[in-house]
Amino acid sequence: MSPDQTVTAAILVIGDEILSGRTKDKNIGYIAEYLTAIGVDLREVRVVPDVEEEIVDALNALRHRYSYVFTTGGIGPTHDDITADSVAKAFGVAIDYDPRAVALLRQRFHGAELNEARMRMTRIPDGADLVSNKISLAPGFWIGNVIVMAGVPTIMQSMLDEVGPKLKTGKKMLAESVRADTKEGDIGTELGEIARAHPDVSIGSYPFFDDKLGPNTNVVIRSRDADKLATAKAAVEAMLASVKARLKAG
Amino acid sequence: MSPDQTVTAAILVIGDEILSGRTKDKNIGYIAEYLTAIGVDLREVRVVPDVEEEIVDALNALRHRYSYVFTTGGIGPTHDDITADSVAKAFGVAIDYDPRAVALLRQRFHGAELNEARMRMTRIPDGADLVSNKISLAPGFWIGNVIVMAGVPTIMQSMLDEVGPKLKTGKKMLAESVRADTKEGDIGTELGEIARAHPDVSIGSYPFFDDKLGPNTNVVIRSRDADKLATAKAAVEAMLASVKARLKAG
Repeated sequence: MSPDQTVTAAILVIGDEILSGRTKDKNIGYIAEYLTAIGVDLREVRVVPDVEEEIVDALNALRHRYSYVFTTGGIGPTHDDITADSVAKAFGVAIDYDPRAVALLRQRFHGAELNEARMRMTRIPDGADLVSNKISLAPGFWIGNVIVMAGVPTIMQSMLDEVGPKLKTGKKMLAESVRADTKEGDIGTELGEIARAHPDVSIGSYPFFDDKLGPNTNVVIRSRDADKLATAKAAVEAMLASVKARLKAG
Repeated sequence: MSPDQTVTAAILVIGDEILSGRTKDKNIGYIAEYLTAIGVDLREVRVVPDVEEEIVDALNALRHRYSYVFTTGGIGPTHDDITADSVAKAFGVAIDYDPRAVALLRQRFHGAELNEARMRMTRIPDGADLVSNKISLAPGFWIGNVIVMAGVPTIMQSMLDEVGPKLKTGKKMLAESVRADTKEGDIGTELGEIARAHPDVSIGSYPFFDDKLGPNTNVVIRSRDADKLATAKAAVEAMLASVKARLKAG
């Protein structure tokens, strides 16, 4: 893929524990930041339960639409870990105990029994590459444009470090943040005009509460083109100076 | 809805800032826990960008499928706040400045100018009820089975407190957590057998790292039926005792 083309991604979080609120997801924000930094645009996230049909449907919706889909969760040794089988079903390929994965698990559990539960972690769809797991050895995998990772954050992060350098990446999104020191509602109209005048630049406005000034705003300007970014940032700064002068006078 | 029927929900998180990783979502886990506590089953979550077509498509996919859809984000005063207009489009209804919302904003900005940007926060789709915002007054709204809330966590939480008591709720999901004090792979096979023997009970297995014991497991048993929950919990505890005795012996 040429550096000018956009590479896109979705995340599919798999797990009843996220939907019940028992476990608070820590992976979405991490992966989002990681992908942005390397030049992959995260466009959508879905969270689905440990239900095969839901996983298959969501995966098929996402994998045809984005350059990559990253899944987290459901690749452990218990009955509720159904991600690998669901991914095989979505791709319409067979799945079986993978000798490479079995070798990794034998390495980890050299003394202990490689029982039925642990063997479950060696089920890998046909044609997938393994994604190594430096923490606990049981691998993730990569099939087509889908990368299947663990749900435990430290293991997921180790897997992402493994696949990251192998991903196609687009031109990086550049971002500048300008602290407005005004309320969002005082600059909204003018900011909208700047956004319309700079269609190749994305301008976001994020209110926050400042302990000294009260309600405040961060304006985030994003573009793949450094010159366009700089021009838009200058327009935002000029607007902020003008609005603040007006508010002070009025 | 009768107490035996299930009431379901989805969350639609709207915002480029979540997908870029700049802002880490704090609302999904909060809403998930809240809904579980009152007897509403969260079944799906999606995160989409500030793009009208994406919001409309996701909302229409979700609102026909679940009892409720809760949206967060995109109801502020700036050009990138397009949730209200997108919701009106999804429902095929008109949208305009709402006199009730205008009155609320006049109350907040009594001295200051109710400018074009702030007026944006008074755009409410036809037929919607307002959802009050005790923090900064600008309201959310409720149309059909869709509840539109702010993205700022404190404001979202205040809106959720407002709508919570008005929601239909099902029989509450009860949960028991059993700390296994064994590795997940040592109980996976047996746990799967218990799950198959107790089809009305959902059994989840969640590995965690224990500072004293090393790799450990929480088993979470969930059911709407207290008796079935107790029976399954007893089966899990008996299995754990038996596996631990075997491991000690072996």
